Amino acid sequence: MENFQFYSPTKFIFGKDTQHQVGSLVQSRNAKKVLIHYGGGSVVKSGLLQQIQDSLSQSKVKYLVLGGAMPNPRSSLVYEGIDLCKKEGVDFVLAVGGGSAIDSAKAIALGSMYDGDFWDFYDRKAKITKALPVGVVLTIPAAGSEGSTASVITHENGMLKRGTGSDLLRPVFAIINPELTYTLPMYHASAGVVDMMSHIFERYLTKTTAVELTDHMCEGVLKAIIDAARVMVKHPSDYDARATICWAGTIAHNGILGVGRQEDWSTHILEHELSAFYDVSHGAGLAVMFPAFMKYTLHEDVNRYVRLAVQVWNVVNDPTDPYGVALEGIARFERFLKEIGMPLTLQDLGAKKEDIDKLIEKLEHNKGTSFGSFKLLTLEDAKKIYLLASK
Amino acid sequence: MENFQFYSPTKFIFGKDTQHQVGSLVQSRNAKKVLIHYGGGSVVKSGLLQQIQDSLSQSKVKYLVLGGAMPNPRSSLVYEGIDLCKKEGVDFVLAVGGGSAIDSAKAIALGSMYDGDFWDFYDRKAKITKALPVGVVLTIPAAGSEGSTASVITHENGMLKRGTGSDLLRPVFAIINPELTYTLPMYHASAGVVDMMSHIFERYLTKTTAVELTDHMCEGVLKAIIDAARVMVKHPSDYDARATICWAGTIAHNGILGVGRQEDWSTHILEHELSAFYDVSHGAGLAVMFPAFMKYTLHEDVNRYVRLAVQVWNVVNDPTDPYGVALEGIARFERFLKEIGMPLTLQDLGAKKEDIDKLIEKLEHNKGTSFGSFKLLTLEDAKKIYLLASK
Repeated sequence: MENFQFYSPTKFIFGKDTQHQVGSLVQSRNAKKVLIHYGGGSVVKSGLLQQIQDSLSQSKVKYLVLGGAMPNPRSSLVYEGIDLCKKEGVDFVLAVGGGSAIDSAKAIALGSMYDGDFWDFYDRKAKITKALPVGVVLTIPAAGSEGSTASVITHENGMLKRGTGSDLLRPVFAIINPELTYTLPMYHASAGVVDMMSHIFERYLTKTTAVELTDHMCEGVLKAIIDAARVMVKHPSDYDARATICWAGTIAHNGILGVGRQEDWSTHILEHELSAFYDVSHGAGLAVMFPAFMKYTLHEDVNRYVRLAVQVWNVVNDPTDPYGVALEGIARFERFLKEIGMPLTLQDLGAKKEDIDKLIEKLEHNKGTSFGSFKLLTLEDAKKIYLLASK
Repeated sequence: MENFQFYSPTKFIFGKDTQHQVGSLVQSRNAKKVLIHYGGGSVVKSGLLQQIQDSLSQSKVKYLVLGGAMPNPRSSLVYEGIDLCKKEGVDFVLAVGGGSAIDSAKAIALGSMYDGDFWDFYDRKAKITKALPVGVVLTIPAAGSEGSTASVITHENGMLKRGTGSDLLRPVFAIINPELTYTLPMYHASAGVVDMMSHIFERYLTKTTAVELTDHMCEGVLKAIIDAARVMVKHPSDYDARATICWAGTIAHNGILGVGRQEDWSTHILEHELSAFYDVSHGAGLAVMFPAFMKYTLHEDVNRYVRLAVQVWNVVNDPTDPYGVALEGIARFERFLKEIGMPLTLQDLGAKKEDIDKLIEKLEHNKGTSFGSFKLLTLEDAKKIYLLASK
């Protein structure tokens, strides 16, 4: 086990009707003026925005509203939010939505306390030393941004998708009411499931030894997600299935499942190029990339894949055929992805095989010539993985 | 799943040599004068106290030292610490040790910001609204107090053992270096293992349904503890075994394994009377009480005990004989306790069967005539459990 720090100071308020606590939570932070930042019209149509405004008003907190956060959130809206916060003296940013609204809110919180261009933080030109506090009302369990240090933004100038991170970007609170996720289109709900599973795989696939405790926890959370997702796609209003998925999405990415080990974020890197290029849902991109990554890296540590197959996918172990067991695990993962309505190939996403060279060019520009730790991937490796993900 | 809040703001710094970071951590909290509170002479003899003093000095932080915290920490030392803090203008309490030093430090932190008697908080006469910040350098993994809201103190006046809790009592940081636990007497190390396992059992044994995700996590952490404890008793300086136990002790009690469910702290209540009365190690008392509690409550939900037996103790399931499977799980738990050198009966602790009536009297005085949720226990039930724990 490696040395580590674990710090997850976000206060999670989980369960039915919890969105009505938002006013008192913001007030307890002594905030005077809140920017409510959300994505699509569903937040308005469902009445959630009104409930939040009512709760803030009851707690005598003023607010402004900025909608329009999209999947793969864009820099233009961030600039708009920062201008608004600076002009209006906003002292708290409240994200209502999923990873897009939250990541965008984090970028606004950063830029509002900075004289330069907020993109400096994503371009590694500036170091994060302060940010407005961010709170969250979660409506899409997927990205885990409600409890994470991370924010990923796509700059329209060149469609660059870049991330930054800091403990200062961990939301001070996150309200998670599973009922708010009932009306999410099932494709997005399933993509969210893949995103959170990927957050666990990126930690589980490690070369660090003696991390049994966290391995067990990763396996347990994966099993719970798989069972709950199968219920969710058939019964969208099953509270317990939604609750399991909501909480799993949070702990998949607040750090607890990655302590003491080297993580490997290659698949997220490979996918980011896809979703920046084709503007597909991040989770759907991961559904295409992860089985390909797993097949490509099988020889790196077949025993890890055997363990995953046996513990999570209930494959019966056969010590005489580790590759067969490991591949059966990956095959069951693919069947599961199909079962919950996810794409399985680049073509399913609308990408063409001949685009792969362009993806590699972008990758080289964004990440250089190699990345990863479970297996150090060269651009040649990356190309082979994209090809494995093609029909 | 029930509604819940999860809030664990403690910064955990885990791994080799981490104790040398204490000065910069305290300094980053803007503390000027620290009370270092520890237990036995081992902290001095091992050189740890000197390392901590050096680290504080390097960070230009002043300090005072108060040793003497004992298992089942006493009120007299708390009063002494409070007087010292008030007189010397201490603004940060640093506990060095295990649950006793930490619980005692929390009580000092509470009392130093209160004009009345600190016992008011343990006697439910006053509400916690402020406390000095507490930091921890952990040397005994067991109580989980380094990440918990709780503090348990024994008042010498009547030997009352009482607990209190508040988010304000969660340590701001906890330094956990598994190497510092190598020299712990094995009996105490094993008692610590039982304490952390009990913290998980008290959460796992619930009547709340649809808590699969956390059930899986509880089972995973229990399995990791059992495997690591078996290594630890044979190889006291096995870093990975000690690291697993250290981290397990923390997450067993920071709340993550109890979200969304009703917990049942009956066994801790039954044990507190034992350790207040005989001054035995809390973990050793739990080793005696838990198998008895499990046998007594088997009929409350045999399926939960079957699951525990199968998932944690690797008992082969036999759907035709749930009681047999469940009892075999408890039998394996008892064999494990024996294997790691723990007592199994009240008599092993030095208690006599005829003392049980006195224990029941104390229990009635401290807790009233019933308690618990997995099974609501009357004093009659409690007596039967103490008898089950007797030879």
